[in-house]
Amino acid sequence: MSRFLKNVWYQAGWSRELDDAGQIARTIIGQPVLVFRNADGTPGAVVDRCPHRLAPLSAGRIADGVVTCGYHGLGFSGSGACVRNPHGPITSALHIAAYPTVERHRAIWVWLGDAAKADPALIPDLGFIDQTPESAQVTLAMPTAADYRLLVDNIMDLSHADFLHATTIGGIMVEARKTSRVEDGKVIATWDARDCVPPPAFRPMVHPAECADIWTEVTWHAPAAMVLGTSAVPAGQTQAPGDIAWTLHNMTPESATTTHYFICSTRPFLLDDAEFSQMLNKALRQAFEDEDKPMLQRQQLSIGNNDIDDLNPVLLPIDAAAVRVRRQMAALLAAEAQ
Amino acid sequence: MSRFLKNVWYQAGWSRELDDAGQIARTIIGQPVLVFRNADGTPGAVVDRCPHRLAPLSAGRIADGVVTCGYHGLGFSGSGACVRNPHGPITSALHIAAYPTVERHRAIWVWLGDAAKADPALIPDLGFIDQTPESAQVTLAMPTAADYRLLVDNIMDLSHADFLHATTIGGIMVEARKTSRVEDGKVIATWDARDCVPPPAFRPMVHPAECADIWTEVTWHAPAAMVLGTSAVPAGQTQAPGDIAWTLHNMTPESATTTHYFICSTRPFLLDDAEFSQMLNKALRQAFEDEDKPMLQRQQLSIGNNDIDDLNPVLLPIDAAAVRVRRQMAALLAAEAQ
Amino acid sequence: MSRFLKNVWYQAGWSRELDDAGQIARTIIGQPVLVFRNADGTPGAVVDRCPHRLAPLSAGRIADGVVTCGYHGLGFSGSGACVRNPHGPITSALHIAAYPTVERHRAIWVWLGDAAKADPALIPDLGFIDQTPESAQVTLAMPTAADYRLLVDNIMDLSHADFLHATTIGGIMVEARKTSRVEDGKVIATWDARDCVPPPAFRPMVHPAECADIWTEVTWHAPAAMVLGTSAVPAGQTQAPGDIAWTLHNMTPESATTTHYFICSTRPFLLDDAEFSQMLNKALRQAFEDEDKPMLQRQQLSIGNNDIDDLNPVLLPIDAAAVRVRRQMAALLAAEAQ
Repeated sequence: MSRFLKNVWYQAGWSRELDDAGQIARTIIGQPVLVFRNADGTPGAVVDRCPHRLAPLSAGRIADGVVTCGYHGLGFSGSGACVRNPHGPITSALHIAAYPTVERHRAIWVWLGDAAKADPALIPDLGFIDQTPESAQVTLAMPTAADYRLLVDNIMDLSHADFLHATTIGGIMVEARKTSRVEDGKVIATWDARDCVPPPAFRPMVHPAECADIWTEVTWHAPAAMVLGTSAVPAGQTQAPGDIAWTLHNMTPESATTTHYFICSTRPFLLDDAEFSQMLNKALRQAFEDEDKPMLQRQQLSIGNNDIDDLNPVLLPIDAAAVRVRRQMAALLAAEAQ
Repeated sequence: MSRFLKNVWYQAGWSRELDDAGQIARTIIGQPVLVFRNADGTPGAVVDRCPHRLAPLSAGRIADGVVTCGYHGLGFSGSGACVRNPHGPITSALHIAAYPTVERHRAIWVWLGDAAKADPALIPDLGFIDQTPESAQVTLAMPTAADYRLLVDNIMDLSHADFLHATTIGGIMVEARKTSRVEDGKVIATWDARDCVPPPAFRPMVHPAECADIWTEVTWHAPAAMVLGTSAVPAGQTQAPGDIAWTLHNMTPESATTTHYFICSTRPFLLDDAEFSQMLNKALRQAFEDEDKPMLQRQQLSIGNNDIDDLNPVLLPIDAAAVRVRRQMAALLAAEAQ
Repeated sequence: MSRFLKNVWYQAGWSRELDDAGQIARTIIGQPVLVFRNADGTPGAVVDRCPHRLAPLSAGRIADGVVTCGYHGLGFSGSGACVRNPHGPITSALHIAAYPTVERHRAIWVWLGDAAKADPALIPDLGFIDQTPESAQVTLAMPTAADYRLLVDNIMDLSHADFLHATTIGGIMVEARKTSRVEDGKVIATWDARDCVPPPAFRPMVHPAECADIWTEVTWHAPAAMVLGTSAVPAGQTQAPGDIAWTLHNMTPESATTTHYFICSTRPFLLDDAEFSQMLNKALRQAFEDEDKPMLQRQQLSIGNNDIDDLNPVLLPIDAAAVRVRRQMAALLAAEAQ
């Protein structure tokens, strides 16, 4: 059975990436995809391969909503229609695959499955991104040489922070009270650490208090979008909605063993502090690049081309949420395979 | 069916390369070949693999027409005969494969097929090389990670110049009148651009005229040697034989997805201008390295290990000459497979 | 048939490496192995893969005889027992594979086969290492991208020195009287060069004599440990035991085409000369890195994924000792396969 769902929205990238480079060229579940803006500013996505000599269209030029192949000049619109053939008539054979595309939550979403089922309402609700000014957001896109499911496991089991991020955010997750449950096909996991000594990264939020209540919740949406909320308040103080910082961790599979990892961190404080955003950007990137990513990539090398579940990994209580995710995915994959 | 003909002459390299390095070691259609000069100065070619422990002979030393294995000192002549064994008698088992080799047109040609059929008359006539002083020639050897057939297509369809080389030689090929035909197993394609605004690289040839007649002809010889003639004269002026610059584009397959690309550019003017040759060398190399090669290699990555023709590429009128080449090759490969 | 024996001791590394880095993580015959010191100082070896999420344990931390997985904090002793689970009870499923391990001759030896057969007496006797002060030893560990059997051949046929190391130790081996024989499953080869002009590296040992008697003996122990003794004395002088310098050349297979090459050079002179040891370290490393290794790796590339013996290499008299080794190995492999 495939490890990839097809009838889902995959994040192709951030709107900011599209506007900075004029295009996003990424392989998603094995398909080369090119995203660019139509003349009306909406995004379009086509297969990144010219039907003539199979050169990647992303090696060409984009202008006025048309991508022109850099090799022989065929032009295509975001709908996949050939709109320019310098060498003869435009025939139906020149039409290329296009994918339903939606820009929402400052991200570009593409649908590689059955287009008739591409309902934008199926995009997970990430309203917290829209509600936060861009100045209080940090978006990252980090290629990682590991199965996207290992990256999902990494977020669904935050106890790893106590070991992998011991000097920054770790130290409270093993002891925290944990729950996980399924709701409407989503998996929700929580970590509740009461009256704990806050790890270094949380200290400024509770200063001058020496003990904190730190609450974390992750909501997984199929196939691999996870919304993480966290708050730290002085021990005993009631948590208010404005205390919670929300972060998206979204894993778009590139291939069986590689993933595009997208993060959007938002915060309810220091809304206009560009310097803080820069610092946070660097800190988040470093935490992943220096700590998670090497471990995930070594884990992948250890697994090789096997499926980790075929290697009989031992399950621990901390895997409960990740196991719920696997079960949801297995049911969805089975349904799609029918 | 193999994609490689065996009973043909493949260019192993330029005479200049052989003399500069003392040897040419290249893999041709999957065979490691070592070319070096016999004691009488003629070139010989042997399999680049010692029969003793299979080390490449090219890692050894060549002197007086003998290549000595760098590992245990066995010596071989260009005929494949073992001529030195420091460790015992020379037995027939020590004889290695040698290939018919001809030096012609300032190039080294090897025959990897049935030696009985290795008729030097089958080498394509490149007399234009011999007739041009070396000071008016530029020879290049450029490894490229693409199927040799993609490199043949690239020359047989020069309309790509309008897109890939738009700022130097492009802009007239799409509009040019095109023909292609088969003659004696050769495929001849022409591009005739009359009364056109000459692209920058052609302007000096027609100066001070503002409009030009630019004529281009490519003659393909199996398996992959193409002779390109081009002339640019003021519009309306009759083209004279001395106006034509001839260039060889020869593609020697290394493997299914890699190619040795050999160019020899000759010119009928500035015969003794070394500085012009240097400039041209750089310009030709840059055009290929910066424009053709990245596109060809990305095209190959897009195709992967497939055969491009199995991926149903859409054919355009500009592919007419390349299609004729494919048909000639299919017939030759079928004949050889019998 | 496998090319690897399992019921043998493989050298995982040098004691010095273990103490310098706190661990040795190497793949041996395809198995990832982690060596570290137990609380009592003895070495232990376990599979380098956590049973929970299969991350390599070598990416974690070692303290007090326990390796702690860097991902989720499971702890294991050198016996393979899980001794720490921060997330729940320690179950038998958490036990990991451990390998019999012996520290002897300043090296760490592991046994990847049937533990019941792991008799330390089967480790080859390398008493010469123990009898030489460390100040008169040089130990090296050099990864090499070649089949371990090619590295064994390289030592069993020292005639290569005359060609590959012509300017340092070569020049006398081709002419030397050679013998080889099997004794108690060991293969012993000798090279006896009488009244010869000593190669540069041997000159200081016989100075001021201009002619030397140079004697070399290699004793192979299955699967790939070779002890090389060599002495150079003025021609005609009787060799004394104290004239002989002994060196271990031990090849631990990493994979079918890669090898961990371990050298321990000892000497009977300049016992306390650290500067000489440094010079020798550099000279030995350079000889291998610059001369043997490039040739062996090119030989491997020439052979590809084939077995060299399937490519019908021509055997010469100089291969006699290597052939005896192959026969011993074939018998041992056949016995183990039963």
